[in-house]
Parts: sequence; structure tokens; C-alpha cells
Amino acid sequence: MDIPGYSIDFEKIVKTIKKEKYKRVVLQLPEGLKTYASQIVEFLENNTKATIIVSADPCFGACDITNYELKNFDVDLIIQIGHVSIPDVENLCIATLFVNAKSDINISNAVKKALPFLKEKGKKIGLVSTSQHVHTLKKVEKILIENSFQPFIGEGDSRISLKGQILGCNFSAALSIAKQVDLFLYLGSGNFHPLGLMLSTKKPVIAIDPYTIEIREKELEELKDLILRQRYGAIASSKDAKKFGILVSMKRGQQRINLAYKIKQMLDSKNKKSYIITAENFSYSILEGFRDIDCFISTACPRIAIDDYLQYKKPIITPIELEIVLDKRKWEDYRFDQIL
Amino acid sequence: MDIPGYSIDFEKIVKTIKKEKYKRVVLQLPEGLKTYASQIVEFLENNTKATIIVSADPCFGACDITNYELKNFDVDLIIQIGHVSIPDVENLCIATLFVNAKSDINISNAVKKALPFLKEKGKKIGLVSTSQHVHTLKKVEKILIENSFQPFIGEGDSRISLKGQILGCNFSAALSIAKQVDLFLYLGSGNFHPLGLMLSTKKPVIAIDPYTIEIREKELEELKDLILRQRYGAIASSKDAKKFGILVSMKRGQQRINLAYKIKQMLDSKNKKSYIITAENFSYSILEGFRDIDCFISTACPRIAIDDYLQYKKPIITPIELEIVLDKRKWEDYRFDQIL
Repeated sequence: MDIPGYSIDFEKIVKTIKKEKYKRVVLQLPEGLKTYASQIVEFLENNTKATIIVSADPCFGACDITNYELKNFDVDLIIQIGHVSIPDVENLCIATLFVNAKSDINISNAVKKALPFLKEKGKKIGLVSTSQHVHTLKKVEKILIENSFQPFIGEGDSRISLKGQILGCNFSAALSIAKQVDLFLYLGSGNFHPLGLMLSTKKPVIAIDPYTIEIREKELEELKDLILRQRYGAIASSKDAKKFGILVSMKRGQQRINLAYKIKQMLDSKNKKSYIITAENFSYSILEGFRDIDCFISTACPRIAIDDYLQYKKPIITPIELEIVLDKRKWEDYRFDQIL
Repeated sequence: MDIPGYSIDFEKIVKTIKKEKYKRVVLQLPEGLKTYASQIVEFLENNTKATIIVSADPCFGACDITNYELKNFDVDLIIQIGHVSIPDVENLCIATLFVNAKSDINISNAVKKALPFLKEKGKKIGLVSTSQHVHTLKKVEKILIENSFQPFIGEGDSRISLKGQILGCNFSAALSIAKQVDLFLYLGSGNFHPLGLMLSTKKPVIAIDPYTIEIREKELEELKDLILRQRYGAIASSKDAKKFGILVSMKRGQQRINLAYKIKQMLDSKNKKSYIITAENFSYSILEGFRDIDCFISTACPRIAIDDYLQYKKPIITPIELEIVLDKRKWEDYRFDQIL
């Protein structure tokens, strides 16, 4: 069983199902792999005795494990392809097998192209990537050493499985080495991860996209400035809010309910009214009915407050930003919201 | 605590929370009542010791109970306002309290306006309504008797709590009296319920909207013809399908997983490939990735195949329609899909 562009350990899936005699299995796939769903189901049904059910719901990450309702379907295993385990949410209710989809793209040319840009910034380079490319960091390390750099790959906290791996909500693998490095090299697509990397480590970041071999540095600095201006605006326009909605995700790996209670107490002590609001997927459209809420505080995925900011007609801020709103933290001590 | 236009038994909620000493309560509201969420939360928090969490996810009916993940929030009670219990899904995982939102609109004028239309069709009238207005059927019965009609109000099956109540997926309270009546009088808004009523009972239906006092009869007949033409088209275009996607909802009251397995077996025996697909909320956009599926069979809410039909770029049919596709049922024996 092969999926073009990726290396996915289907043999491990087959072995696990056979060994544990799993009978009903739910398969979660990221959007890009759904087109292979029928092939994967057929492969697994032909090679095991399990019945495979495919989840069609969007699956944004390892935090987004399909829910307890599957118990009613007698499901005994959830397989999530395309993400690496967040250890503290795994196996909470139904056995869960995370199977990474490793990109098979060769990163050598991209890294070599980045060398002169790295040289300008320093010698000590922290290496980070997402689950798709993190397996290539050893190779990147080798190339950097050959070119007289000093690369570092950090360990993350208990939510991180692989050395050098970062999530949009967790930069612990970068923070653990931030003091030792001059800058970070991020290997991967998208702007959200390098943005969080810059805001959480306060170090320069050079990003290389292994697919386009595009190097981003100045654009990221500009994006950081834009986002900080947006965040400053969101904080300023939350100052007069009277009623706050505290958002708590129902997704397994984003359930910061205790943080929500803490925030509610903090607002109570400032005589501000607040309401805890939960949902599977937050968007402005599902919150539109809550007309009298002046400001939302998201304890869910940090992307909701930051990436989706312009979709919201009310300010939406992170828990750290609320501390600034309530004068418990200074703007100079701004931190990126993480789930650690 | 009053909500304009509705009678909602908030005292019962307070009593239940106090009696059972519930500590963490999730509140589900239909879209129209979300604007009152903060008032309801304040009322309940002021009158009990419970912490109230509001669910922002859409809540389409009593079938749509928010999910098991709430266990992780130590939630011990779910309150669903605006729907009447579907007894067989209640209390499955967390105690659930359904509190109806009874419309306080006076239906007398609407019923009186309908009298000449009823007279044309017959004397024996089956009375049905939705949870919002079903409490008025006793009054409708009285008006009809005063005007020399013979009204009937039927009992539903184990999914139906109130006499005369119908759901979009369950017309058992009408079917139980269908043989005795000349026609049905439906009291309520929307076209889906009277449409299902016509298709499941095969009797004439007159619908009155208590808000607009509008009487619908001819329009419903035209809609029925349009929908039947659409269904005929959907069945015809599913005949050549090679790969079928069998949709199973994760919503508590729509989980027809055993029907899905039965359908899969039926398709297997006809050498047609099929895949079971589950989701919280089905829409064409979340199914778009499944590019090689030629036809979807929905075991979820019947509205998905029928109301949302035009949104789908692939035919989407009900389990009964699949029987016609596979020549196991004749078009003449077409039935409306129900969850009984």
C-alpha cells in the first residue's frame, strides 16, 4: 500500500490490529489523504478481520481525536494517520494509534539554499519541524555540521513525541534550546508555526518550505509585526468589554477547562461577567447567536484567536492577552499562547 | 426568568439541579435562544450552586445531545432546552434533562381559519404537531369537536414522548391513527414535517403555521411532487454507482450503525463496494475529499438526503431508496425514511 509523496507505515497498522484482535476500527485522515480513504479501507479490510469506519470530520491534528460517541459503535481502535501522538491525550477512552505520514521529499537542496541566509544570522542553529518533515532533521544536522554550523535539536515536553517537533500550540522543543542558539531554522510549510516560534522564543527564524524551496525571513518579520499590531488592537478593544465568553474546545487535546475556570475567577474578581462556552469546532458563525458577549477568550487551539481573527466581529483574545487586558501583565511581556 | 414568546419551565431546572446536587451543567440551546444564553446562565448560577457551561454547537433536536467528551469536564448534567426527550437516547452517558420551549402563541384563529379547508377533505382529522406547539392539540381538538369534526390524536412509538408529536424522522404518532382518519392537520412552521407526514401516511395534509396563520395544502402537494421527482432522479443516477459511502451520524439519536452494517452486507452481496463514513455533522464539503465515491447512502437524519440534496454533487439517497436502486423494492412502494 503506497500513497504518493508519503511514507506511511501501513504494516504497523495491520500488525497492531492483528495482534490486539481489534474488530471495529475508526480511521481519521487529514483532508489531503481523504481521497485515498477507500484504498486504505480496502487494504486494511483485506489484510485484517477488522471492519473499518472512516471519519469524515476534519482532523486538524493529534489534539483532534474523534470522540467518545464511537463507544456506541463498539469501536475498539482509532487510527489517526498524518499526525504524531500527543502522549497525554492518547488512549484516553479508546485505544489510539497515531501513524505519521512522512513526506518523502528530499530536503537537501532546500537546506543548501538556506546556508548563506543562516550564515548572516549566526552559527548556532536550532532545528525544528512538523511531524511531516521532522524525520529529516538528522540529515539537516549533518549538512549544517559539514558547513561549519553548530546545529541543536531540542527535546519537547510531555505533549511532544519527537525531538525537534513543534506544534502550532507547543514550541517546547524550541524553548528547551532557545538560550543556546542564535536563530531557528524551521523546515515546513505555512506561516503559523514559524510565527509562533518567533513569538515564543523571541529569536530570529528562517523558514524553508521543502516543497517550493522558498526561504522566508523578511516576510515572517513583517507578518510578526502585523500580527502583533492586530493583537495589540484586540487587547485595546477588549478593555471596555463587560461580558466575556470563555471558549473551551471539546477536542481531546485542547480541553483546557481548568484554565477556563481560572479565567472565570479572575474576571469575577474584577467584577466582569463571563460565560464558559464549549464547542467541537469554533467559528464566528456558531458564536453569532451570543449577541451580548463583548469579547471572546479562546482556551482552544491558539490558531482560533490568531489565524481566524479577522473572521470574528468581536475581539477574540488568548488567555495571556486577557492578563494584559486586566492589567495583570504588561504588553512588553507579551507571550504566544501555548498548550504545554 | 421569562423568554418572550415561550413558556420554559426554569423552575424545574433549578429543582432538578438542587435535588440531585449537580455541580457542572452543560446547557444546549437551539439557535434562536442562544441570544438569551447569558441571562439563562445567570439565572441558574444565581439560583443553584452549579457551574453552567453553554454549548455553542448547533443543536438540531433531541437526537443531537452533546457528546461524551464532556465527561472530561466532570459535567454531571446536560440540559437541552427547546426539545422534548427522545426516551431511548436520554441519560445514555450523562444525565440529560429536556425542557421544552412551548410557544405561547394562541392557535385559535389559525385553526378557525383552517376549518373550511378541512371540511372539503373530510370529517376525521388526525392532529399532529412539533414539540413547540403540541401542547395546543387539546385545544385544537375542542375547536374541531365544536365544529362537528372527529379529531384523533395518536400515540407515537418509543422515540416519542408526547401524544400527537412528530419528528422530522418519526411519524409514528400519525401512522398509529392513519387508517382511521381522512386527512391530517399539521400545526407548525416549515415544510419538512408535513412533507414527511404526506409521504409516510399517504394521506392528505393541511398545514397551518401558528405564527403567520398561513394555510398550506396545494403548495405541499406541489412540493411533494417536486421532491418525489428529485428522489426518482437520485435513485436513477445511483443505478450505475460502483462505490457507495454509507453515512452514519455520531449524534446520539441518529446512530444507525447496525443499519449501516446491514446495508454494507446488502451491497457486498451485489458485488458493490461500500465504505462506512461517520461524522458529527454531514455536509457535502466534508465529503468532498472522498472523490471516488459515486453515491452516498445516509442513515443519519433524513433531512440530509432530502433537504440538503441540491448541495451534494453526488447522489445522496436514503436506505429505502437504496433498496429501489438494488431492485429489492419497487418505486411504487416508496417510503419516507424514518428512525423508528
